Amino acid sequence: MRDTIGPDLRDALIRTAHALADAARPETLRHFRTGLSAENKRLGGGFDPVTEADRAAERAMRAVLARERPEDGILGEEYGSTAGASGLTWVLDPIDGTRGYISGTPTWGVLVAVADAGGPLFGIIDQPYIGERFEGGFGRARLDGPQGRAALRTGGPRPLAEATVLTTFPEIGTEAERAAFRRVAEGARLVRYGMDCYAYALLAAGQVDLVIEAGLQPYDVGAPIAVVTAAGGLATGWDGAPAHGGGRMLAAANAAVHAEAMALLAG
Amino acid sequence: MRDTIGPDLRDALIRTAHALADAARPETLRHFRTGLSAENKRLGGGFDPVTEADRAAERAMRAVLARERPEDGILGEEYGSTAGASGLTWVLDPIDGTRGYISGTPTWGVLVAVADAGGPLFGIIDQPYIGERFEGGFGRARLDGPQGRAALRTGGPRPLAEATVLTTFPEIGTEAERAAFRRVAEGARLVRYGMDCYAYALLAAGQVDLVIEAGLQPYDVGAPIAVVTAAGGLATGWDGAPAHGGGRMLAAANAAVHAEAMALLAG
Repeated sequence: MRDTIGPDLRDALIRTAHALADAARPETLRHFRTGLSAENKRLGGGFDPVTEADRAAERAMRAVLARERPEDGILGEEYGSTAGASGLTWVLDPIDGTRGYISGTPTWGVLVAVADAGGPLFGIIDQPYIGERFEGGFGRARLDGPQGRAALRTGGPRPLAEATVLTTFPEIGTEAERAAFRRVAEGARLVRYGMDCYAYALLAAGQVDLVIEAGLQPYDVGAPIAVVTAAGGLATGWDGAPAHGGGRMLAAANAAVHAEAMALLAG
Repeated sequence: MRDTIGPDLRDALIRTAHALADAARPETLRHFRTGLSAENKRLGGGFDPVTEADRAAERAMRAVLARERPEDGILGEEYGSTAGASGLTWVLDPIDGTRGYISGTPTWGVLVAVADAGGPLFGIIDQPYIGERFEGGFGRARLDGPQGRAALRTGGPRPLAEATVLTTFPEIGTEAERAAFRRVAEGARLVRYGMDCYAYALLAAGQVDLVIEAGLQPYDVGAPIAVVTAAGGLATGWDGAPAHGGGRMLAAANAAVHAEAMALLAG
């Protein structure tokens, strides 16, 4: 599919991606930092809150797609898969980082990506409270935020011993995954927790060197892969394979630190 | 001192506090998310970056005080103590959360407080990148941010099992302190890491129930104590004693969850 996308379709897809993020913003903000109680969608354990905002934002995005891109498929966190006929699929996570959202932290985001069978082509990581949007794909990688517009470019090579790692660990993953993560963390200069999808945005912006996660769903990774890759980084599984199916993510500013971390994750 | 502060002095102190935060903003933003390399001020270990921004912001604040409040004392992170004659001391941390700052996360802040011998009277937690200011003291507790102005009010009582805890752990503290923290964390519904001083702001805004820290300096806690207390919360040491000297902090939305956490921290 990607080889047949001309400039007109490319521009239309970028416009639609922004329209989706625009539609989600007010829905996510309506309930942010209110006393909204969260539901627990995983019966029998874990803590995976879903808010009204999450659902309302996905409905708002699906309404845009029904109007603008009715032939495309949809994979959304809240309302599942909708088959399409165009070869393109919109991958939507209306609120990535629901734990951050219900804690009031501005590290959650709206994730929008458009993908073909080979993976994400273009994506947006939007932080509605800050008013900050990171986008990447189709030769573009940039940020629009409270301080204006800037190009996104991942950082150059530096040894792991000088690197900053962002992660959701120690909260996530299996025991073996946590042990693998610790091997990287112990070799790094600085580890920061709790950044949700904002971690990928900071990687794309050249601020950090590695993002390491596990237990991801496809809708968690579409936009991050697009934005990080467009900014010059790598976003693969822990084994270096394509990561758009979810699971374990190793996103890196450059090939050197990616290889160094991948070796440590393998044990 | 506090018993003799009339409305004119109170208003002057509030104005000066805002002037200090205003003066720090551009200095902190000038180097935020640039490639700035950090220095390491603790010789022989640890990672405590100090940036040019940190120093420039404190110089800018001290220039304001030299002009507006020359009789007051100053306790600043970067340039130490300056004695005063008024009985009032300005407690300044130009960039609290330097690790967050150099990682690009919008969770660091400028901390400004004015204190007498009994502790902080008024404080500001300012997040320049977001353009968000939390203030509290002298009967006022409010937020000005990208979504407008709102009153700050801590949350009502709910059991620890339903509570959210924010902390910088597992990075900080002694082994015994980490064990004590884990006793609270294991009883809580949700634990989030890496929020720096923004954690206190979210507590004041009613978003979370507890903030637990250790190894703090006096300039780390002046503004948080003022803002949290003004919003209806408690901000004490782990033993319930006044915390403005630094050390271990237990900040809570209300007396019930404060007591529950204090008992678990004591072991």
